[in-house]
Amino acid sequence: MSVAKLPADITRTDRQMADGRTIRYYDTKGQRRQAQDQRPAEAQPQIGELRYDALVGEWVAVASHRQNRIFLPPKELCPLCPTSENPGELLTEIPESDFEVVVFDNRGPSFRPPVGDFELPEALSTQTAAGESAGKCEVICFAADHGKSLKDLAPSQVRVILEAWKDRVRELSKESYIAHIAPFENRGEEVGVTLTHPHGQIYSYPFLPPRVEKMLAAAQEHKDRTGRVLLDDVVAREIKDGERIVARNNHWIAFVPYAARYPFEIHVAPLKPVADLAELDEVASAAFPEIALEVLNRLDGVFGIEMAYIATWHQAPVRVGRDVMRLHWQITSVRRQPGKLKYLAGSESAMGAFIMDLKPEQSATQLREVKL
Amino acid sequence: MSVAKLPADITRTDRQMADGRTIRYYDTKGQRRQAQDQRPAEAQPQIGELRYDALVGEWVAVASHRQNRIFLPPKELCPLCPTSENPGELLTEIPESDFEVVVFDNRGPSFRPPVGDFELPEALSTQTAAGESAGKCEVICFAADHGKSLKDLAPSQVRVILEAWKDRVRELSKESYIAHIAPFENRGEEVGVTLTHPHGQIYSYPFLPPRVEKMLAAAQEHKDRTGRVLLDDVVAREIKDGERIVARNNHWIAFVPYAARYPFEIHVAPLKPVADLAELDEVASAAFPEIALEVLNRLDGVFGIEMAYIATWHQAPVRVGRDVMRLHWQITSVRRQPGKLKYLAGSESAMGAFIMDLKPEQSATQLREVKL
Repeated sequence: MSVAKLPADITRTDRQMADGRTIRYYDTKGQRRQAQDQRPAEAQPQIGELRYDALVGEWVAVASHRQNRIFLPPKELCPLCPTSENPGELLTEIPESDFEVVVFDNRGPSFRPPVGDFELPEALSTQTAAGESAGKCEVICFAADHGKSLKDLAPSQVRVILEAWKDRVRELSKESYIAHIAPFENRGEEVGVTLTHPHGQIYSYPFLPPRVEKMLAAAQEHKDRTGRVLLDDVVAREIKDGERIVARNNHWIAFVPYAARYPFEIHVAPLKPVADLAELDEVASAAFPEIALEVLNRLDGVFGIEMAYIATWHQAPVRVGRDVMRLHWQITSVRRQPGKLKYLAGSESAMGAFIMDLKPEQSATQLREVKL
Repeated sequence: MSVAKLPADITRTDRQMADGRTIRYYDTKGQRRQAQDQRPAEAQPQIGELRYDALVGEWVAVASHRQNRIFLPPKELCPLCPTSENPGELLTEIPESDFEVVVFDNRGPSFRPPVGDFELPEALSTQTAAGESAGKCEVICFAADHGKSLKDLAPSQVRVILEAWKDRVRELSKESYIAHIAPFENRGEEVGVTLTHPHGQIYSYPFLPPRVEKMLAAAQEHKDRTGRVLLDDVVAREIKDGERIVARNNHWIAFVPYAARYPFEIHVAPLKPVADLAELDEVASAAFPEIALEVLNRLDGVFGIEMAYIATWHQAPVRVGRDVMRLHWQITSVRRQPGKLKYLAGSESAMGAFIMDLKPEQSATQLREVKL
């Protein structure tokens, strides 16, 4: 495993926020970041609870301090904009008056780092004793410009975002209480986004999330049976089939998966497989912004409207399955027509059984036919 | 396993619809049901496809004929109302001019019965060959009254609904292509309901839905380790803890589960455990309407508004796990405050990891404090 550092032209500056949280500036022009967080310190939320759902064998995190979040504020009240230099205006999460990419600790996190050593509570199927939670939640602001979306950014900006993701994965992977790291972006009110400023989140879990656990089991079974890595075989199959490919370049391929669950679902995988973001080499990293922007613009081009989506990096867990799990970026959208959403109701939500109204080959064709 | 028949006072009359589908009338006054479906016959939708998602080892059903469903029609265009006796008005799915409870085959089903013998396609992790789908989707209309909701019905009406559910489970369980049966109700635009007429659906799957498969594995593991049935232990624990109980009578108990995933989630279980609806005896059946109505009215009482919910019967699969799986009714609501919903975004949707903003003990208290 080669774990690269930040490229020579990207600097990271860490600053402490008024309440003790850390904000990290990722810059390409060697900017000095010295602005102080002028807000009064506020009490930190409590550490949450982990509860074991015995009926399915899954952890549920209880973070009951999160109820009152700001909902779709106008630009002048956006906490993710840089703080204005004009006195009297809002003091935001970012003390500087401009930034390229920042990553800061979430103000109302679902998971918080433990105070001392952390051990996952024993998962007994009929236990009710609550276990203390652990983990980390960070916010990544993609750009200072409130009105832009990830797809509107320049490739050079997406490059800095990718390097920030890689850097966070490298650093968070060292924490013994973290089992899995998931950088994701929710976009659109339809998926519950409360802040429109272009941003994503990085969730670090103290357990393997249920879906990751399932992916690990499938990958391990495939390795045991065939000696091969599952995602490598899946990518090879998509290339061979060809009909669901949406975009490709020399280092990445984007396709609608054979068994997609959402009206629009795109997986973007590096052609040279790696376990996680930290392992992405220079050439693969350099080729990502182009295909990422193409895919996101194709998605918005299908109906000519901004599509609600969830974009998530799936990667190998921090300490297990690193020989069988592979990095890929999964984008799913519940938009099936301009005025229609796919809802996860009885079958999907209660049974976990997805019904697709749109053939993956059809949505792949629609995505390919978008004129960029 | 005692499989009872319909109670002596309930009659079932089957009629063929114009396009060959079956409608079943469940009546308590021996009504004669002879009205003909006057609509022109229409072509039946094609049989769907099953695709295996190798990355997680789950089946996804492709039913690409379902895109154009009628969306929230006014009463005069509601296909689930009885057909009016006045000429020129809409010919609905129910040819009779009144009914108590009906169950009919879904017009745009996600699953259709196979033409000949059915076998689940072999689930090879890198296979792309599509398998033909099978299964059955039925619609259950809870009442003729368009403006009512399940919670507004009389206990005597809920009794007929329960007997219809039991009857369908008994009959559908005989079909060799059906592996699991899930009666559920989606209520509210927030969960994508397109028809407000009080109704539910009955999905019969040709495979074990992923969530059921997981419940089965957890229940089997518990049985192997302790010799006991998991849901029995969970119910015993909830009774012992007491603080999450919402309602109870001599035959049923309703509680917010210890590790609830939704702001409001209630499980309703019979005190004398049974594998499925077909096994519910007369006394347990007679005691259900009361607690069902209480629970649904408590749910709507919390904020004084109709709550969007998904209510699902979890039961043992048709042919496996019948000694370890137990019947219960699960109601989940994404409503966390009058103007706020819980969305399943990055963590829940992509990772399968649920974050609860509200403590289960708190929502149980809110439900208990509702004045009925």
